[in-house]
Amino acid sequence: MASSGTATHKFNPHFTQTVINATGPNVSPRLRKITTSFIQHLHDFARENEITVDEWMAGLELMNEAGRMSNDRRNEGQLLCDIFGLESLVDEITYKLASDAKDEPTATAILGPFWRKDAPMKKMGDTIVSGIESTDRTWMHGIVTDFTTGKPVEGAVLDVWHTAPNGLYEQQDPNQPDMNLRGRFTTGKDGKYNFYCLRPVPYPIPFDGPAGRVIQALGRHPYRPAHIHFILTAPGYKPIVTQIFDRNSKYIDDDAVFAVKDSLIVDFKPYQADPKADFELPYDFRMATFEDAKKHSIVGSNEDGA
Amino acid sequence: MASSGTATHKFNPHFTQTVINATGPNVSPRLRKITTSFIQHLHDFARENEITVDEWMAGLELMNEAGRMSNDRRNEGQLLCDIFGLESLVDEITYKLASDAKDEPTATAILGPFWRKDAPMKKMGDTIVSGIESTDRTWMHGIVTDFTTGKPVEGAVLDVWHTAPNGLYEQQDPNQPDMNLRGRFTTGKDGKYNFYCLRPVPYPIPFDGPAGRVIQALGRHPYRPAHIHFILTAPGYKPIVTQIFDRNSKYIDDDAVFAVKDSLIVDFKPYQADPKADFELPYDFRMATFEDAKKHSIVGSNEDGA
Repeated sequence: MASSGTATHKFNPHFTQTVINATGPNVSPRLRKITTSFIQHLHDFARENEITVDEWMAGLELMNEAGRMSNDRRNEGQLLCDIFGLESLVDEITYKLASDAKDEPTATAILGPFWRKDAPMKKMGDTIVSGIESTDRTWMHGIVTDFTTGKPVEGAVLDVWHTAPNGLYEQQDPNQPDMNLRGRFTTGKDGKYNFYCLRPVPYPIPFDGPAGRVIQALGRHPYRPAHIHFILTAPGYKPIVTQIFDRNSKYIDDDAVFAVKDSLIVDFKPYQADPKADFELPYDFRMATFEDAKKHSIVGSNEDGA
Repeated sequence: MASSGTATHKFNPHFTQTVINATGPNVSPRLRKITTSFIQHLHDFARENEITVDEWMAGLELMNEAGRMSNDRRNEGQLLCDIFGLESLVDEITYKLASDAKDEPTATAILGPFWRKDAPMKKMGDTIVSGIESTDRTWMHGIVTDFTTGKPVEGAVLDVWHTAPNGLYEQQDPNQPDMNLRGRFTTGKDGKYNFYCLRPVPYPIPFDGPAGRVIQALGRHPYRPAHIHFILTAPGYKPIVTQIFDRNSKYIDDDAVFAVKDSLIVDFKPYQADPKADFELPYDFRMATFEDAKKHSIVGSNEDGA
């Protein structure tokens, strides 16, 4: 990368400082730091690449269009961030565990744009699949434990969602029942959970908006490897937003939104013991109390900032 | 600024390169350069400031909201760019004259979000003011010349727009006639132009959207100094997008969108000679042919890029 100094000399050398200095005296240190750095990077980017008015306008139109497409059911701005790896990066930054910790809670992964609140509350052993014939029926089960004590976590709510075999989430697909392939399960004293779902498939991110156009312009494929999304919450514990990925899925090494982590790769095992399932998927989750999370710097160092 | 190296060590050191490497082999050099630099700055910004998921989400919501507010009559995304000085900077980059040129065409300034296409065609001597009583009636006149030959430019179209005394452009104000305080004038053989307008007033950028919230959060004032907007076009000449600023206006040294340039500051002179005007505003424009513009590097150096 050219340093900002190289590219600056042609242009007004005081301009960036003028914009930075416009920030008022009573702004919090955190907001001032972020704003100053944002302005510096934004201006350096423009100067280093000698961005023209037409190029800027093209980027701006992309941004405005993404905003216009975004609503309760779709977040195109988020998708734009995702294809540039930003959501995965801030996820890593926010939840990074201090490297000297002996054990680790379950790793996090990006939320993605398809989560919906108020997924149906289910009972253990229920299925989240409705109206889909499949040979990828999966029996998922495991236990939620405290990552320091190893004890079961009671009252943990596991919020799960994944795509249908056609690669679409229910809100993208008028042919699926509302809230299909979504559910919430609450653990009892034993911390255990189990339910039926499907073995998911790789799918392309939505292609009909700015993010799709960018992916295409950059000569990239739009596919995500097969994965299941989770949010885990429990009283006194730090929530975990994560995904698990099918080891044998195409694109496992080449996720369009850069979310795969080694510790989140899982194996779907062929399963004969249950006529209602074709695969078994055992997976345990480890949660950290807020106290432990703080002790091990799992939360971002600036959580108390502005 | 912290260098990216300082802040990187905590986080996956290969992540940014992975995202950069996803760009395909057949992408144009210009797009590859811009994308690579964008990803690097975006990630460096996130790491240097340890941006958390919540902070990123807040920024994303701001961006999506700006897009949703943007339409034919309002460009909130552009306004967000403007308050961070980006439009003024890309304007400088795009139209920078090589510093060894002896004379200069009229300097450029940002378009801003209030231009409308198809402003009414007017005759010389017409007024662009409709239904407004004012003691700031202004007789503006001058000549459009070729900046190298000094000869008048025939057929130059001067597209002018400014705010009403209440600080609002007509499209922001249901009480103004459509296209009020806008007009287009075409020069004849003598290159001269003249029309009646008003001496404009300082006004705040719109405060009811994300840009207004950011300005407020940063403890900044939202005002622009009094100015008149122009776009000049003429056959064979490079278009000029510019503004002229009233020397005696409040905020002349402190424009909320950083657009003021010394050569664009003008004097409104009290005027007795004409009962229809309170002020006289003489101002000449100098245009460059496309050929001269290229010779003097007025266009961005990458205009032939992707």
